[in-house]
Amino acid sequence: MSATPVPQLGDFKAYIASIDTFILDCDGVIWQADKLIPGVKETLQALKQAGKRVVFLTNNSSKSRAMYVAKFTSLGLDVSVNDIFGSSFAAADYLRQIKFDKKAYVLGAQGLLDELTSVGVQYVGGYKEDTVNPWTSIDQGYVEDNPEIGAVVVGFDPAINYFKLARAYTYIQQPGCLFIATNHDSTFPAKGGRLLPGTGTIVSALEVAHGSNALVMGKPSHFMLDCVKTAIGYDPARTVMVGDRLDTDIQFGLNGNLHTLLVLTGVTSLETLQSTSNAIRPEFYTPSFADLHAGLRGD
Amino acid sequence: MSATPVPQLGDFKAYIASIDTFILDCDGVIWQADKLIPGVKETLQALKQAGKRVVFLTNNSSKSRAMYVAKFTSLGLDVSVNDIFGSSFAAADYLRQIKFDKKAYVLGAQGLLDELTSVGVQYVGGYKEDTVNPWTSIDQGYVEDNPEIGAVVVGFDPAINYFKLARAYTYIQQPGCLFIATNHDSTFPAKGGRLLPGTGTIVSALEVAHGSNALVMGKPSHFMLDCVKTAIGYDPARTVMVGDRLDTDIQFGLNGNLHTLLVLTGVTSLETLQSTSNAIRPEFYTPSFADLHAGLRGD
Repeated sequence: MSATPVPQLGDFKAYIASIDTFILDCDGVIWQADKLIPGVKETLQALKQAGKRVVFLTNNSSKSRAMYVAKFTSLGLDVSVNDIFGSSFAAADYLRQIKFDKKAYVLGAQGLLDELTSVGVQYVGGYKEDTVNPWTSIDQGYVEDNPEIGAVVVGFDPAINYFKLARAYTYIQQPGCLFIATNHDSTFPAKGGRLLPGTGTIVSALEVAHGSNALVMGKPSHFMLDCVKTAIGYDPARTVMVGDRLDTDIQFGLNGNLHTLLVLTGVTSLETLQSTSNAIRPEFYTPSFADLHAGLRGD
Repeated sequence: MSATPVPQLGDFKAYIASIDTFILDCDGVIWQADKLIPGVKETLQALKQAGKRVVFLTNNSSKSRAMYVAKFTSLGLDVSVNDIFGSSFAAADYLRQIKFDKKAYVLGAQGLLDELTSVGVQYVGGYKEDTVNPWTSIDQGYVEDNPEIGAVVVGFDPAINYFKLARAYTYIQQPGCLFIATNHDSTFPAKGGRLLPGTGTIVSALEVAHGSNALVMGKPSHFMLDCVKTAIGYDPARTVMVGDRLDTDIQFGLNGNLHTLLVLTGVTSLETLQSTSNAIRPEFYTPSFADLHAGLRGD
C-alpha cells in the first residue's frame, strides 16, 4: 500500500474546467439525513450555470426516483427525475434491458415496487405481502414452486419475515431464476446517528441459504454506472464521482475509470482516508463539496 | 488433497471393541425426518447391552432436550435426557459456565427458551415477542440501548422480523455484549425433501450488520464437545463421532481428535465422500449405522 497521502484538491477552477459531468452521492455529500450541507445549494446552482451536468446516485432502495424529487424539493433543490439514479431504478432498468417477461418476487418497499411498475415488470410480494404464518408447524412448512417467477428482487424490506425469506429462497432455486439485489449496504443511518441493519443483511441471509451471491445493482457494482451511461452518456475522462464512502462511492468511481473526489462531510474521516491500511484511494479529497464553489466564482 | 479413497468399515467386531463412547448425530443417522432408519433401534440396544456409552448430538436449536426425549420415545427408543446434547442446551450451558448474570435478548423458539430457563438465565424476546411495528416510519425508527442486556442469543426463530433484527443488532453493539449463535446451518430439511432457510441465515444477517462473527455453539465448533466433556467425560482415543454430514459432523469429530465414521443414510453420498475435491475425510464410512449390529451379534 502506498504511503503517499491522497492530495487535497487545491486548484478548483482548473479542476472544474476539466470536468463535464458530476456524479454525486447524496447522503453525506448533499445532505446529512434531512439537513442540507451548507453551501451545497449554491454550488449546485453555479455548476448548472457553468453548463455542467450533475446527476445524483443513491443506494437507498426504499425510495423511487419520484420520491427523491420530493426530498430534493423539500430541501429547496431543483432536480429533475431524469437526473436521479437509485438502486431500485437500476434494478428495474436492468430487467427492462434484458427484456424480462416473467414475474418478479419482491422483498422491498414502495420505491422498488414503483420502479418495477414504471418499466412494466409484474411482481408478487413486496412489503405489504400478507405476513400471516401459513403453516401450523414449521416442521410441516414448505413453499410450492411457482414457475411464473423468473426473478427474486431484494431491496430494503421493513416487513421482512421468515416466510418471505422461505419463499424467496425457494424461488431462487428454480432453474433460470435471477437473484437480484438493489444494494448490499450492511447498515444505514437512522435518527440520532444510530445505525440500523441495511439491505445487505437480508441479501446475505438469502446468499447463505442459496450458497451463491446476488447480482447487486447498487454501488460499487457496475450496473448503476451502466444505467447512467444508457441514460445520459458521459466521457469517463471528463466525469467525476463525488462521495463520502470509500468502499461504495470511491470504489464505484475507480471501477468505472472515472475521476474520484472524496468529501469529508459523511462517514469517512481524513484519518481513515490517509491510513496506510486504506487501499481505496480517490484522486483527491476536499472537506466539503461546497468547496468547489470557489472555482465557480472566479476566486 | 489425497486421492486415497476413505476405507469402508469392515471388521465391525474389532472396531466396536476399540470404542467406549459413541457420539451420534440424529437426523440422517438415527432417523430421516420422522422415520426411524431400519435396524438402528436394535443396534442401539445391543450397544447398551455391550456396555457402550451412547450420546446424541443435534444442531437443531428449536427443540429442548426434553422435547428430544419425547421424539426418541415416539420412535420407540429409550433415551435419557442426560444423553442428549442440542445446540440450545450448549448455548445455555455455556452461559451457565461463564456465570452469566445479565439478561439475554433471544431470537429463538421454545426449545432455546426452555434451556435458558433451566440454567436460570433471564431473557427478553423469543419467538412470541410482540411483532407489531413500533415505528410509524422506518426513517424515524431506532432501538434504545438496554444496559440490562449482556448477550444476544440467536437460534432458529420462525417469527424473525426486521424489528427483532434491529433490536439484536443494537444490543450486540453494546460494550461487552456477547453475540452467541446456537448453530450456523444454512438450511434444514423440510417435508418432501425440500430445504428451508436455517439458523445460519439469521445469524449471517446480524454478522453482516455487525461486521464480526457470532460465537457458534453447534457443530463443528468445539463448544458442544466441551459440553459433552463436562457432562460425561470421554477418552478421545476410544470415542467416535458418527454422522452423515462432512462439514458439521465429521469436521466436528476431526476438530475434537475423535474417531470419525460417516454413514450414507443422510445428506452425503459415496460419490461426494470420495470426490478428490472433498477435503473433509472421516476415518471410515459405512452405508448405515445399523451395520454395526453385525459386530455385536458375534457375526
